[in-house]
Amino acid sequence: MNVKDYMQRVGQAARKASRAIAKADTRQKNQALNAMADAILRDSAKLLAANQQDLDAARAAGLDAAFIDRLALSEATVAGMAEGLRQIASLPDPVGEMDDFCYRPSGIQLGKMRVPLGVVGIIYEARPNVTADAAGLCLKSGNATILRGGSEAFHSNQAIAACVHEGLRLAGLPAEVVQVVETTDRAAVGELITMQEFVDVIVPRGGKSLIARISAEARVPVIKHLDGNCHVYIDDTANPEKAFNIAINAKTQRYAPCNTMETLLVHTAFAEFILPRLAEAYWEKGVELRGCERTRAILGDKVVAATEEDWFTEYSAPILAIKVVKDLDEAIEHINHYGSHHTDAIISEDYGRARRFLREVDSSSVMVNASTRFADGFEYGLGAEIGISTDKIHARGPVGLEGLTSQKWIVLGDGQVRG
Amino acid sequence: MNVKDYMQRVGQAARKASRAIAKADTRQKNQALNAMADAILRDSAKLLAANQQDLDAARAAGLDAAFIDRLALSEATVAGMAEGLRQIASLPDPVGEMDDFCYRPSGIQLGKMRVPLGVVGIIYEARPNVTADAAGLCLKSGNATILRGGSEAFHSNQAIAACVHEGLRLAGLPAEVVQVVETTDRAAVGELITMQEFVDVIVPRGGKSLIARISAEARVPVIKHLDGNCHVYIDDTANPEKAFNIAINAKTQRYAPCNTMETLLVHTAFAEFILPRLAEAYWEKGVELRGCERTRAILGDKVVAATEEDWFTEYSAPILAIKVVKDLDEAIEHINHYGSHHTDAIISEDYGRARRFLREVDSSSVMVNASTRFADGFEYGLGAEIGISTDKIHARGPVGLEGLTSQKWIVLGDGQVRG
Repeated sequence: MNVKDYMQRVGQAARKASRAIAKADTRQKNQALNAMADAILRDSAKLLAANQQDLDAARAAGLDAAFIDRLALSEATVAGMAEGLRQIASLPDPVGEMDDFCYRPSGIQLGKMRVPLGVVGIIYEARPNVTADAAGLCLKSGNATILRGGSEAFHSNQAIAACVHEGLRLAGLPAEVVQVVETTDRAAVGELITMQEFVDVIVPRGGKSLIARISAEARVPVIKHLDGNCHVYIDDTANPEKAFNIAINAKTQRYAPCNTMETLLVHTAFAEFILPRLAEAYWEKGVELRGCERTRAILGDKVVAATEEDWFTEYSAPILAIKVVKDLDEAIEHINHYGSHHTDAIISEDYGRARRFLREVDSSSVMVNASTRFADGFEYGLGAEIGISTDKIHARGPVGLEGLTSQKWIVLGDGQVRG
Repeated sequence: MNVKDYMQRVGQAARKASRAIAKADTRQKNQALNAMADAILRDSAKLLAANQQDLDAARAAGLDAAFIDRLALSEATVAGMAEGLRQIASLPDPVGEMDDFCYRPSGIQLGKMRVPLGVVGIIYEARPNVTADAAGLCLKSGNATILRGGSEAFHSNQAIAACVHEGLRLAGLPAEVVQVVETTDRAAVGELITMQEFVDVIVPRGGKSLIARISAEARVPVIKHLDGNCHVYIDDTANPEKAFNIAINAKTQRYAPCNTMETLLVHTAFAEFILPRLAEAYWEKGVELRGCERTRAILGDKVVAATEEDWFTEYSAPILAIKVVKDLDEAIEHINHYGSHHTDAIISEDYGRARRFLREVDSSSVMVNASTRFADGFEYGLGAEIGISTDKIHARGPVGLEGLTSQKWIVLGDGQVRG
């Protein structure tokens, strides 16, 4: 198979299918989503068998436990995929939403209509559940999609694709609305990210190196997610209990997610009071602490001296950097300089400081008195999320259905011409 | 001067200034804009003298009349720049707008806040008035900006920059909020579009080849404007007078703008009635007609036979392609296939067809019974526009203050942690 020709055909078919899905009505799209969920539940055994093939090959290839863990499906995760599709069906359809209508002096009536982006390319690692999630989100938002999952999940993805296609067929929609790339040749990715005439946006999901490489080589716009170097700043006006609970939850509820806190900032007037209590709790949970000089003066040598590098680091592990800051200004400056503009929180009971933090911290999610761990599509009510954007244009933060759409201008007139 | 080092310094300074302008209050920004307008009017003679230097050089270099026309300032255009800045001052400040607040089941209150993009790079041809427009729009939307205008307008741009800087100084804002690149070395453009750490978005303004080249080489996201191949479709349910007026206005009010009609589509049942009247009016105005077979059968051999190429072409000239279509479906299909997704209009009194056209035509502006010529920032009430986007992500159509901003998520809590 010539990969370039194959991908061109996939692209052309996606562009054509995007016209059909853009005008599909809400009932038809929901019908497809629910039929996909039915097929996935019914074919649960088939999916697990296909997944077993992938797992066997992955183990034979000596891939590590974390990799196997992401690749593996179970009865529960299969049921979760079906449930995810039903949830997407239950969400309001963003396509065709109209707002901001007003009359202009010329007499035209101007407004906006929400419309699909067109064709969305998703590139992801060997996580089969992404196939169902991404297909569902793109379908509901009226987009055609080209899915290119990690080759190690090939059989799992093809089995899920069969269920997706059954759902599309039952709803009377073209199969090309969701295409799962049928080659494991890596050149397919290179084609996908450069077919400007057929693909409107690329969403890479995976590790930082994958995303960085795709961003560097793409000719199609990319909605990307790089670092999640998140901060909690405890002001000296914080309620101690809220501060304690949030600082613990933001770090230790789970270590791997991108919305987990990596650096704790504490106001100097509050540090001696709160840090010993926090340190004890962190150590009890096995969290390694790395701190500034002041932190070490308060907590002792058990705290490793933090280097410049630490402030930039997303550990994704039971490690926390701690810095004592002299005031809100220093906290905001630290976050904007060292952070990754993902999610940052202030703990404070002071109205003015909370208000300044909200405005001045340049991150996709900015919080007052809440755990950074809330920054995801489910908690934000977007249903599933296609990813969390660390970009500034188009969409910031969790990207759900709305992030897969755009707005066009609508002009309603009665024969107006320009003078 | 080492261009790379120079542009790095410009980028660093812009990033730093972007923090200051992002938190500047509305009064301060408006004060700067009005002070810039005052300085421009006061220094009118200086600006015209600087412009004369550029004009002399351009004429000596044998640049053509259209080029000279874009480069030339006059008392009136200088007054227009000042007026444009005052208009921007009078527009609502988009920064900090908050909406979509709701309580989530976890108890957090979730909403969105409109925020500046950060640093905007503008690359444009030798049109000095863009310097003032772009500086004003970026300032009001809370962005720092790096302006790189055509080298033939160097003296004009530097003179305008002096007025801009005076306005910033009087309002107590750093001069680096607006930087006009001080080298005519073309390598500066290459640096500007690849400084991902310092520049958040690039807006190229100019000819198609400039924009295509910048898009191809940029590593920073680009809000771009390529073709304006706009259509008017006259349905057989059209009001004849509206159809006539709009078809004439959309083509002949001005030939060069991107929102001028390039292809007229006419329903077959309406063609024999309307085309002869229209053709007469077009010919009277010196518009060359190129038509499909059916058009030529109705209008005769004076109409040149249109080729496949014609349907794709933005003439920007007194030339019009005409095609007779059998129904609305063919019209929509033609527009989505051959058009450039810029601005397209239907003339119809039929509710259902108007509604389908609005939904199914995939263009940044879709109109019913109005001239395509309305698609611009002034007519849409955006004040000035930084450009008209033909992209699908971030912003479609005229881009004003809102298009230079993004939305971040805001979470207000009372100590909530994730369970």
